[in-house]
Amino acid sequence: MPRTATGESSIARAARIIAAFTADETSLTVTEIAQRAELHVATTSRLIAELTTHGLLARGPDRDVRIGVRLWELASRASPVSSLRDAAMPYLEDLHAVVGHHAQLSVLDGHDVLFVERLSARDAVVNYSQIAGRLPVHASSSGHVLLAHAPLEARERVLQQPMPRYTAATITTPDRLDRAWAAVRRHGYALLPGHVHEDATGIAVPIRTTLNEVVASLSIIVPNDDHAQAGIPALLAAARGITRTLTNQPATRPH
Amino acid sequence: MPRTATGESSIARAARIIAAFTADETSLTVTEIAQRAELHVATTSRLIAELTTHGLLARGPDRDVRIGVRLWELASRASPVSSLRDAAMPYLEDLHAVVGHHAQLSVLDGHDVLFVERLSARDAVVNYSQIAGRLPVHASSSGHVLLAHAPLEARERVLQQPMPRYTAATITTPDRLDRAWAAVRRHGYALLPGHVHEDATGIAVPIRTTLNEVVASLSIIVPNDDHAQAGIPALLAAARGITRTLTNQPATRPH
Repeated sequence: MPRTATGESSIARAARIIAAFTADETSLTVTEIAQRAELHVATTSRLIAELTTHGLLARGPDRDVRIGVRLWELASRASPVSSLRDAAMPYLEDLHAVVGHHAQLSVLDGHDVLFVERLSARDAVVNYSQIAGRLPVHASSSGHVLLAHAPLEARERVLQQPMPRYTAATITTPDRLDRAWAAVRRHGYALLPGHVHEDATGIAVPIRTTLNEVVASLSIIVPNDDHAQAGIPALLAAARGITRTLTNQPATRPH
Repeated sequence: MPRTATGESSIARAARIIAAFTADETSLTVTEIAQRAELHVATTSRLIAELTTHGLLARGPDRDVRIGVRLWELASRASPVSSLRDAAMPYLEDLHAVVGHHAQLSVLDGHDVLFVERLSARDAVVNYSQIAGRLPVHASSSGHVLLAHAPLEARERVLQQPMPRYTAATITTPDRLDRAWAAVRRHGYALLPGHVHEDATGIAVPIRTTLNEVVASLSIIVPNDDHAQAGIPALLAAARGITRTLTNQPATRPH
C-alpha cells in the first residue's frame, strides 16, 4: 500500500474526503473539504482530481465538488441493503398508503439506526429521519426494536453512552432504556409517543429471518394522539410479509 | 499522489475493485475481485483490507467481500440524485398506485439510462431495469425521452453506436431512432410497445426544470396491450408536479 510521509494511505484520505459530504451539504468547495477532512488544501485538491477522474466525485456548475453519479451507482447497485429494500418496498408502500405520514425501513449500524428507505406523505407530521440518515438508538422506536434484539454486548455499550434529551418524554437513563427494551421483546413492538418530537409518535416492529433473527425494523411516524396505536396491526402484518419475501427470494435480484 | 511501480494510484485500483460488484453479484471472493479488477491477488487482498478498515467494503459470514454499509451510506446521503428523488417520490407512489406494474425515475449518464428509483408491484409485468441499473438508450422509453432532449453531440454519438436487437420491435437503425426522437419532441412522450420485451410497453415523459431543461425521465412499464396508452395523462400530470416541487424546494433537504 503506497503511503505518504505521514504514514496515511491515499485510500484513508479519500474515505475522509467522501465523508465530508452530508445530506445537508451535498456540494462543497475544495477548501471546505480540506477543513472537514483535516488535510492540506494542495493534498485535497490532488485527491479530488483523482477521485473525479474515476467518477467517484464530480464537479458542479460552479466548480463545486459533489459525490459522483458513478459512486452512487456502484454503491447502490450492489448495496448490502438492496435485497432487504427490494423485499420490503411493496409492503412499505402499502403501509404508507394505509397509515399515511412516514413509513420507513432501518437497520442497526454500530450504535445508530440507519434508515435505508423512507416514504413520506407531502403533508406528513414532522420527522427527523432521512434516507441514509441516522438517529440515536435511545430515542427512536426503530432503535428500541433493533437494540432490544441486539447481542448483550451491543446493548451494554449503548446503556453506557450519553442519551441526549429531545423532549420531556425522551428516555435518558440506562434503567428506563433497559426496561423499555424488555417491553419491546414482550409486546413485539415499540411505541414512543413524543420521544423525538412532541407532535410525533414512532411505532416500530422487528423484521425477522426464518431463523427468528432480527435483521431490520419497520416503522411508521404518526401524529402523537389517541389514534397512534391503530397502526400496530398493519405494521405487524407488513413485517410478516417482508420476512416471507426475504426467505423466498432467489439468490440473484429479480428483474 | 503516491503511485505504485506501474504508475497506477491506489485510488484507481480501489475504484476498479468497487466496480467489480454488480446487482447480481453483491458478494465476491478475493480471487473473483482480482480477476475482474485485473489486479494481482496479493495487491487485491491488501487493498480490500484497507477498504474494509474504512467501512467501504465489508466481510460477509463466509469471508466473502461485499460493499460496506458505510460506503452505501456516504454515497446515498449526499447523493447527486437525492433532491430529484425526494421531489419525485410522492408522485412516483401515486403513479404506481394508479397504473400498477412498474413506475420509475431515470437520468441520463453518458450514453445510458440510469434508473435512480423504481416502484414495482408484486405481480407486475416483466421489466429489465433495476435501481442503479442501466439500459441502452435506443431501446427504452426513458432513453428516448432523455436523448430526444439531449445536446446534438450526445445524440450523434448514440446514433453511431451499435443497437442490439431485443425483440422484433426494437429500433436498430440510426434513421428510425432519429425519427423516434423527433416524435418524442412533438408528442411530449415516448411509447415503446414491446421494444425490450414482447409483453411489456414502456411509456416515458420528460421532467423539466422551470428553464424547460429536461433533467430526468419518469416512466411506467405496463402490459403490451390496447390499454397501454391510458397511462399517459397520469404520467404527464405527475411530471408537472415533480417540476413544481423541484423548483420550490429549499436548498437543504426537508426533514
